[in-house]
This record gives sequence, C-alpha cells and structure tokens, in this order.
Amino acid sequence: MIAIVKQSATQEQLDHFVKWLEGRGLQANVSQGSEETVVGLVGDTTAVDPFLLESMDIIERVTRVSEPFKKANRKFHPDDTVVDCGHGVLVGGGTFHVMAGPCSIEGDNLFAIAREVKAAGATMLRGGAFKPRTSPYANQGMGVKGLQLLHDAGVENEMPTVSEVMDARDIPAFLDNDISVLQVGARNMQNSTLLKELGKLDKPILLKRGLAATIDEWLMAAEYVMAGGNGNVILCERGIRTFETRTRNTLDTNAIAVAKHLSHLPVVGDPSHATGYTRYVVSAALAATAAGADGLEIEVHSSPEHAWSDGAQALTPAQFKNAMRRISLVREAVTMEDE
Amino acid sequence: MIAIVKQSATQEQLDHFVKWLEGRGLQANVSQGSEETVVGLVGDTTAVDPFLLESMDIIERVTRVSEPFKKANRKFHPDDTVVDCGHGVLVGGGTFHVMAGPCSIEGDNLFAIAREVKAAGATMLRGGAFKPRTSPYANQGMGVKGLQLLHDAGVENEMPTVSEVMDARDIPAFLDNDISVLQVGARNMQNSTLLKELGKLDKPILLKRGLAATIDEWLMAAEYVMAGGNGNVILCERGIRTFETRTRNTLDTNAIAVAKHLSHLPVVGDPSHATGYTRYVVSAALAATAAGADGLEIEVHSSPEHAWSDGAQALTPAQFKNAMRRISLVREAVTMEDE
Amino acid sequence: MIAIVKQSATQEQLDHFVKWLEGRGLQANVSQGSEETVVGLVGDTTAVDPFLLESMDIIERVTRVSEPFKKANRKFHPDDTVVDCGHGVLVGGGTFHVMAGPCSIEGDNLFAIAREVKAAGATMLRGGAFKPRTSPYANQGMGVKGLQLLHDAGVENEMPTVSEVMDARDIPAFLDNDISVLQVGARNMQNSTLLKELGKLDKPILLKRGLAATIDEWLMAAEYVMAGGNGNVILCERGIRTFETRTRNTLDTNAIAVAKHLSHLPVVGDPSHATGYTRYVVSAALAATAAGADGLEIEVHSSPEHAWSDGAQALTPAQFKNAMRRISLVREAVTMEDE
Amino acid sequence: MIAIVKQSATQEQLDHFVKWLEGRGLQANVSQGSEETVVGLVGDTTAVDPFLLESMDIIERVTRVSEPFKKANRKFHPDDTVVDCGHGVLVGGGTFHVMAGPCSIEGDNLFAIAREVKAAGATMLRGGAFKPRTSPYANQGMGVKGLQLLHDAGVENEMPTVSEVMDARDIPAFLDNDISVLQVGARNMQNSTLLKELGKLDKPILLKRGLAATIDEWLMAAEYVMAGGNGNVILCERGIRTFETRTRNTLDTNAIAVAKHLSHLPVVGDPSHATGYTRYVVSAALAATAAGADGLEIEVHSSPEHAWSDGAQALTPAQFKNAMRRISLVREAVTMEDE
Repeated sequence: MIAIVKQSATQEQLDHFVKWLEGRGLQANVSQGSEETVVGLVGDTTAVDPFLLESMDIIERVTRVSEPFKKANRKFHPDDTVVDCGHGVLVGGGTFHVMAGPCSIEGDNLFAIAREVKAAGATMLRGGAFKPRTSPYANQGMGVKGLQLLHDAGVENEMPTVSEVMDARDIPAFLDNDISVLQVGARNMQNSTLLKELGKLDKPILLKRGLAATIDEWLMAAEYVMAGGNGNVILCERGIRTFETRTRNTLDTNAIAVAKHLSHLPVVGDPSHATGYTRYVVSAALAATAAGADGLEIEVHSSPEHAWSDGAQALTPAQFKNAMRRISLVREAVTMEDE
Repeated sequence: MIAIVKQSATQEQLDHFVKWLEGRGLQANVSQGSEETVVGLVGDTTAVDPFLLESMDIIERVTRVSEPFKKANRKFHPDDTVVDCGHGVLVGGGTFHVMAGPCSIEGDNLFAIAREVKAAGATMLRGGAFKPRTSPYANQGMGVKGLQLLHDAGVENEMPTVSEVMDARDIPAFLDNDISVLQVGARNMQNSTLLKELGKLDKPILLKRGLAATIDEWLMAAEYVMAGGNGNVILCERGIRTFETRTRNTLDTNAIAVAKHLSHLPVVGDPSHATGYTRYVVSAALAATAAGADGLEIEVHSSPEHAWSDGAQALTPAQFKNAMRRISLVREAVTMEDE
Repeated sequence: MIAIVKQSATQEQLDHFVKWLEGRGLQANVSQGSEETVVGLVGDTTAVDPFLLESMDIIERVTRVSEPFKKANRKFHPDDTVVDCGHGVLVGGGTFHVMAGPCSIEGDNLFAIAREVKAAGATMLRGGAFKPRTSPYANQGMGVKGLQLLHDAGVENEMPTVSEVMDARDIPAFLDNDISVLQVGARNMQNSTLLKELGKLDKPILLKRGLAATIDEWLMAAEYVMAGGNGNVILCERGIRTFETRTRNTLDTNAIAVAKHLSHLPVVGDPSHATGYTRYVVSAALAATAAGADGLEIEVHSSPEHAWSDGAQALTPAQFKNAMRRISLVREAVTMEDE
Repeated sequence: MIAIVKQSATQEQLDHFVKWLEGRGLQANVSQGSEETVVGLVGDTTAVDPFLLESMDIIERVTRVSEPFKKANRKFHPDDTVVDCGHGVLVGGGTFHVMAGPCSIEGDNLFAIAREVKAAGATMLRGGAFKPRTSPYANQGMGVKGLQLLHDAGVENEMPTVSEVMDARDIPAFLDNDISVLQVGARNMQNSTLLKELGKLDKPILLKRGLAATIDEWLMAAEYVMAGGNGNVILCERGIRTFETRTRNTLDTNAIAVAKHLSHLPVVGDPSHATGYTRYVVSAALAATAAGADGLEIEVHSSPEHAWSDGAQALTPAQFKNAMRRISLVREAVTMEDE
C-alpha cells in the first residue's frame, strides 16, 4: 500500500504519521521526491483501512499495490484450478461444461428435462429447490423434497447436480442428498456467514457475481470460501444491474475475461439470468462462450409457459439443442491456435 | 396488472391468452381500443411474473397497477407507524431521534462514548458486535461479548440499543442481551431467510437499503419482515453505489422523501456510511434531515484514528455536539407551518 | 399511452382529466374495471410528458404502449436497412464488415496501417482527426489535415473511410474530403443540434451509444437523424459505464441483440473502447460478433506505445490478423442454420 | 503520477521504461522498496494516458498524485471565486442566490412569473429558449424570440437572467440579448467544442453536471471553460442517473460538499430536475441547501398543467414562496458558528 503525502505536510506531521503506522505493526518506507512524498507501507496491510488514511489531513491519496485477494489470485497460483464435480466432470483447465435444467424443481417433470438436456450435450444438471424471491408472496421452492428429486435425476443420468443454498442451516440437506455443487446466488455473494460455512466443506461451490459487485469484490467473496480451506470455487457471471430496462440484467462479457486474467478459478456464464428473455438467451450464451468462459449455466424447461419461476428466460429442449451446436463452433474459435 | 396486446395478435391468440390466465385463477378484463387492446388482470397477481408475460409473442408490454408491497404501503395504512424502541423512544409519527456510537464495539471505551453522545442529544446507542467485512482477513467484531457491553452501556445511560444481526443463528444472543433494535445491513437487505426469522420477533428492525436496491425492492424487503407478523420496521437510507469515487457511497436524499410518500414506516438517514469521510458527514446529516428523515444514525468515536473499523467516517464527540445544534435548526425548517 | 387512474378518483375528477386531454387534441378511451380505471390516450402522444401525468393527483401510473421512435422502429420497417458506404461496402442485411485503423490520425504512418488492416480482412478504414478529450490539455487531433490523409489512404486502398465529427461547423470539411461515414461519438449522442445537421446529409452516420444511455435513448438519437431525412444510420455499441474499474467501459452484448430486435438499423460493436486494454480486445470482439453484430470497429496501430491516444487498447496488425481468423469462425456459428 | 512496477520486472525492462518516459519529456524518480518499485513521473503528465501505462507488461498500477484540473482546483486558488452576474448579484463567497422561472419560455406569461418569483425572494430569472429534448418530435423551444422576452423580463425586474445555450452558433443571440448567465445543460457537459467557445467569453457560465459524470469529470469540463480564459464558472448539481425509477434523477448532495472542497467555484443545486416531481422538489431544495450549496435553480410556473415542458416538476408561485421561507432557515443552520 502506498500513501501519497501532501506537499503542505510538515516534517513533524510526517514523523507522527510514520510512528502511527509503526504502532500498527507496519514499516514505513519514505521516499521524498521533488513533487511528492510517497510512503510505502510494508507488512500486513490487509487490516489497514485506506479510507481512514485518506481522511487524514496530510494524506493526498492512497493506493493498494497488491490485490487484497491472495488465494484466488493468479499471481500466486498461475495454473488454472480444475474443480472435480464428480461423474468425471472437471471444470476449468481448458474444458467446457454446460449445466442445464429448470430454474425451479417442480416435480417429476425434472426427469424428462434431465434426459433431454443430457442428450443435447449438457454435462451437469441444475435445478432450484430453495428460491430467493423478491416478494414474500412468491413461490419459495420445494425445499428438501426438491433436493431429493434432483439427486435422483442426477443419478439416473450420471450427471453432477447443481443447486442453490441460501442459508447455512440448510447445508446438511445438501450433503444428505449428495448435491455435487452448491450454488451461492447473486443476493448472497456478500453473505459472509454463509461463505464461511461453505469454506468448511470440500464440495465445489458455484459463486454467482452480485448484482452490483465489482470483479474485485467477487474475488474477495471467493477468498472468503477459500480462506476457510475450500479451494473448489467456480465463478459465475450472471449479469449485472445497469440502467437498461429492456433486459433483466446486463451480461458483462468483459468480466469473464478479466476474472480469468486475475484469478486461476474457472469462470462460467449464465445467459438466462443475464438477459431474462428467451429470445436473447442464445446470443448471450454465444457471447459468454466467445469471451472465454469455461462453461455455461442455462435454464431449460419443456414447457416454459407453465414453469414456476423464470419461464420467461427458459429455452425449450429443442432450442437448447440448436444452441449447443452453435456454442461448440464458437468454442472452436476461442481455442484455435494463433498463426 | 395490465397487459397490452400487440395489434398483430389474432382473436384466437387473444382467446388462448385469456384462457391461460383463467387457468391460473385470474379474471381477464379485455378492453379493445382503436390503437391497442388492454387486458386487465383481476385477482391475486402477486404470483404472476411480468417477465413471463412480456416474453409471450402477442404481448407488447406489462404494467403493474398496484405496488407489490401491501403491509408496508401507505395506501392501505395512511397513518405513520410509530415504533416503540423502549426507554420512551418512539420513532416515527413526527418525532426525531438520533442513534449514535462507534461502528465497532471495542471494549470499555463504549461507556465513555455513550455518555458523551447522550450529553450531546443522542437518544439511542449504536454499536457493532458482528461486522460484515469485504475481506475475510479484516476484524469480524467482538461478537456476543460486544452485545453484553452494548446492553450494559444502554442500561447505564437509559438508552435503547441498536446493533447489526448477520445470521439467524445469532438472534438468540440479541434477545438474551435485550438489544432494543436489530439492524439488517445493506449486504443482507435481500437475505430472505434472515428477514423471515426477524418477522417472527416483536423487536424493532432497522432495515438498511441495499447498495444497489431500488426503493421498491427496499420496501419489498420490509414486506418480508412484516408478512411474518412483525410490523416494527424502521427504514434506513445509508447511501447507494454510483459511479462517484470521491465518496464511499452516494446519499440519496430523494429516497427519504419517496419512501415516506409510499410507505407509513419511519425512515432514518445514515450520513456516516453515505459519505465515508468525516469531513462530509455533517453536511450529509443536515441534508438527510432537510429531506424529511425521522432520525439519523451517526458514527461517533472518541479517537477515530484508533477505531477498529470505519474510523475515517466517525465524528468526535465535539464534532457531534456541534452537528446536533445545526440538525435541530434544520429540523425546525422541515416542521414549520406553511403560510 | 395508457394512464391508470387511482381508485380514489371521483367521477368529476375523471371528467376533468378527460376534458384536459381533449384540450390537447387527444381522445380519451375510458375503461372502468373492478379494480382500476384505465384511460387509453388516442392521437399524437409524442408531445405528452408522462412525468406530467404521473404528477397529477388522480393518476396512479402511466405507460407508453408504443415506442417513441418511429422511423428507427422495426415494427414499421421489418426489413433490415442496408447502408451503402461506398467501394461496394454494404453494412446491414446479413453482411459483416470490420472498420479498422488508428484512434488518432498522426501522419503518414496511416498509409502503412491501412495496407495492413486491409490485408488482414478489414473493409473500412477508421481514423480520428477531431478528438473529444476529457482534458483541455490533451492532444485534440490533427483536424482538417487528418481528414485529407484519411481520404488519401482510403482512395489508395479502395476502402470507405470513417471519422468522428464533433461540431456542425466542421461538416463541410468532411464533405470536402469525401469522408464516407461520419461518426458521432458517445459524448455527442444527445447533441441534438449536431444530430439535426447530420439528418440533412445523405452520408452514412455511425452513431455511438452514449456512456449511460439506454437502448431507447440511443434509438431516439437515431430518430433525430432519420427525422431530418437521412436514413443511413449505423448503430455502434462501444461499452457503457458501470461500477467496474478493471475495464474502461463494459461491453453490453445484450444491447446488440436488443437493438437488432427493436430496430432495422445495422449494429456494430467497438471492442477497443468497450474494454480499454489490448489484452481484452480480442475476446470482446468475439463476444460482440457472437451476439449478432453486423460488424466491428477496432483500433489498430503499428506501434501502440507511441500512439497519440488510446494506444493502450490498440491491436498490432499481427494481433488484428489473428483476431480476424477467430472472428470469421464465430460469425459462422452465428449464421449457421438451425436443424 | 506514480507507476508501481511489478516485482517480476527485470532491471533491463525498468531501464527501458525509464528511457521511454524520458523520451516523452518526463523525469523518472525510481524508488526501489523491498516489496515494490515505485516510479514517480516528474514533469507535465497531463499528456500521459494512465491506461497506456497500465497496459504495459511490467506495470502493476498507475495513480495520479495530483488532480488533472488546475484552474478549477482549490489547492492552487484557496479563496472562493465570486461570480458577478450583474444587478448586484454576486454568486459564491458566502452569499446565497435563487434562480427561478419557467422551464420553457412560452410567451408573455413570463412577466407575471418573473414578478412573482422576485416577490418571493428569487434574485435571478431563469427560462429556456433552446430546449434539449430526447424526442425530435417534442417542442424545441421559442429560440431567439424567447431570449428577447427573457431579456425584457429581466430588465423590468432588475434581475440577472439565465438561459441554456446548446450550440456555439447561437452564442451571438445570447450576447445580443444580453443574457447574464449562459447555462450548459447536462447533455452538453462534455461537448468540448461548445465549452471552448464559452471559454472565450467573459460572461458567467452555469455548468450542469452530466447525467453520469463523476465530480472530477465535471471539474474537467469547468477546466475547459477556464483554460480558455473565462473563470466565471458556476457549477450546478442537477441529479444523476441511478437505478431508481421513482424519481427522474437522484440528487447527489454529497457532490455539492465535495465540489466545494475540491474547487473554489460556487456550486448551486437544481432540485427540479433532480427529482422530476413537484411533490419532492421542496425537500430536495432544502437538502441541497443543507449540503452547503451557494444557491438554487428552481422551476416555477403559474400553471404547471399547461407548461410546455417539465410542468411535472414546477412549483406554483405560492409553493415557491413557502419553500423560500424554509430554505432561509436551513441556510441559517448551515452558516451558524460552531461553539
């Protein structure tokens, strides 16, 4: 961390500042230039609040030299992390996997959907049992019964399963039903008590980016899980909030490329939530793939009009199958060799 | 809810749509104009997803006629809600109360701060025991021990106490230590499992607005608590995220006026988080008061440089005292009679 | 336009409202439902301010039924517009064209760059002569001399030319130098006096989306040009401002798909400004193509380190050539037939 | 400007970087710490693009030490600028002035409005003759005829006049009609060709903050005017775009306090555009005043229902009069002495 000291600061003020830093266990490396004085803070600066420094009278500006995330940082772990999700599905490190299925698990129709998405090329089965809803009056999901159905449909089709966990108290139900990947939704990206509990597991965690989160905050959320000992984190870009109202969210394809540059964790895209309308899902799926995603999570429902939730953004199995053909070709463009 | 049907829709498509609505328990009120056909949906539309309707081929646009929040809605409850926080402190209905204290409870210095803020006119004591932090490596608060200190300082000064709860599993500790007001932080505004648990209590809940939440979403979060049976909700505007980086957040004074117009719940402002820098806290406190807030929550610390967290935005007791004098005069301007 | 009237409105108030509308040349189509009264406004509603209606005591909410853009609207012009840019380059209607060249024209090195981008597959030559800069102290471009160089390089390589116009008073210089496409920058998207002047020309206009503009506002800006009689508008998505600071802007691939759905105008993507860093330009170019763009505008410079402006986001000719190969394959994925 | 060099950089790379800087006329001040190497750039860094540096392989991060605005910067000009608008109205330096009048000048009703706002305490008369409109089909203003009316109403009431200029070609008409203050609207805040022309005048310029502009960009726009020689700039905060749709814009009261801290220029608030609805204008006016504004610009119309534009946000003269009484009391709170 670097603090730039105002030209107006006296030597006495500077000395006092250096002493204050030392009192917090930091070493201060002062370098007086002709136009500014730069103080480099050496030591563990994770506990130093840059806002506090900037509020001090003699400080002009404060800059972090190094990212606040360590375990998620590609600088310290240059090789891609590969997350083993079971059934031979390895996410990251050059593979490409598609998770598909209904937004909400609704009952036995899950089995038919599972068969169809598998036939079309999906390698993982997604379905929501606990649903975060804006309205307390909206359907909140099937709960544990849904997890059981998901488990059974996964076993029948030999596919790893993905489902959202919203509360630490529900984790045992996910373990009992052997759900392969526990998903953290956008609303819970900064729910630190939940992230800490997931850090104690050895299950893969699919971490969605928050609605208004920066990439750094997203990686700090991954760091919460990893700091607890669980390095099996898959990042998921699912669209951010912008001023645009013609789509539900705005897919940030840049974020896929940036997250892969800054971190070794795999990154997948969710074109369903990132658009909110079926008519835009396929182009968003292609765009996320083109940006370098390691996979996709797509909502598929055999009868979107009758879905419990988010039917507006679901593909039918036939639409999904055609999308998969295009996705494969885009993936070829991404992985082709430069001349 | 109103659905506007495209001019290109055939009578057969329209009939099919009406039948589909009836199959979901709704009555359809069709009104064919010369330029558009409007279908009014009568019945319980809370379970209807407007995105789904808009994704249908024949639908041009969908508009909610009535707000999705009911219990928090001033239309159905015109009178101001007054929340009894104990020690004679009634928030809402024309009163003005200031909650003050340190961001984090750090130890026995809480007692001195409590005495000073009370002397300066604060009527409620705030202090954080469980801290939501962006970094897993930052101080996470004193926990239960902090709640005990807060309780004792509240009793000593006959002030109701306010502290943030981050996880449903911690609620019993708040009840054991008789914390007067349970605060929900911005990051948890859409943590529906936590909101539901708070809905089962009869304690006042201070609900902060999420970083990127609209006013409607904020009121829907209040609705979650109220739908569970707990009507004692105080709203708190604490700044939203914008493109501006010269301040930590952007105080949205409009939101104070709008929330009071749409809802009967009391609304307070938090100028400390809404600015992030001590030098801007007083002007923000005055602005929130001028916009019609029912109170303020302000961070005060006797030695901000040494605070565990957010020292950059804390007022000293002396600064707080001067601020209170100005706040009182602004409050007079707000409550004066029109000629 | 639909106005929903409050349940509390009296018949007298409703009658007064209908009369007020008629006084403004509109017909009011009143439909009283059991839960709401809906008033459809028939006639030319382009001059009616929905904010004004919503501020009236008896009005609950106002919704536009039809988009405010007419000439740019695909509803009234279902077929794709094809813009003839000269030298046989037709943009829109299923073609794919790449405009490449330096951000700023700097001198004779333009000719070498032009030859190289043409060899790599670019069909149009871009270069800035008048530069919008945040700082008055930054280089403001070569001006007319730059237009001359651009013209000559275009002729030599038989490529249409693209350059930004910032002020109506400069238009004659663009015409004198026979610049093929006049570009309107993001900062000028709502400069209505400039748009009106461009509406009087018959030259193609490349209209960049504003930094914080919605898609509807972007199409309304196109409408300004088209209302003046010039239908040759090409839209350009160049990234929007979001909270993210790891990239200069955020490429909105959704916007490409949405603009093509709502409008018949061609839409191209600008991955250079949409990312701001060379290392992310190729993935953004692929993403924009995958989302369905009709072309791309890419900054290429033979020596980015020495570029006058935006060198940070320029590709070298070699990088550009490799990008073009990938882009072609992605384009195949977009245009392949469904089974 | 400070560049932080990666630990992985070799001495050779560092030397090459220093040479590159020197080739651009800058001196490089290298300071090697144990954890990072910091290069301070000495000389005129206004022409250096921080994005370009950050795109270089060996650079970790770049930070500006000093603000890019000079003439607008309080550091170099600690005393408040006072702008003389004529008729004895001095804006800035501790005074408080209210500009009031209709959004659009419509005809002779301007004279009655002028008399009423003056009687209520306004000291400046505002009115729009050239109107920036989102739709080409909306009323574009009276033009020069409107300026004449404004001039006459100003003379009659001995009030300085304020009106928006949208195009450099219209400036002579403003001079001919002796308009006291030329207003630059939010859409034109970064119209650098217009700003440069205004920099050549000696008339006061009222510079509105752009819809999505940061405070630094706003001050850079002021710098454009000042760099041309015209230091008579008044800043105007008129609300920014956020996700909120219950108000037209979001008043950023923080920005008023920050702009006054960073710059010596006077800052006024525009509560009319910052809210968009009459019912919220007064609370926003009080909030802007409380935040420390040097004045306000408020839309007043004797018959808002019949206004040409923005009637939804206009106060009646009676409402304005009551607002002025409250504003005065808030102003007292702002200017009271600390104990």
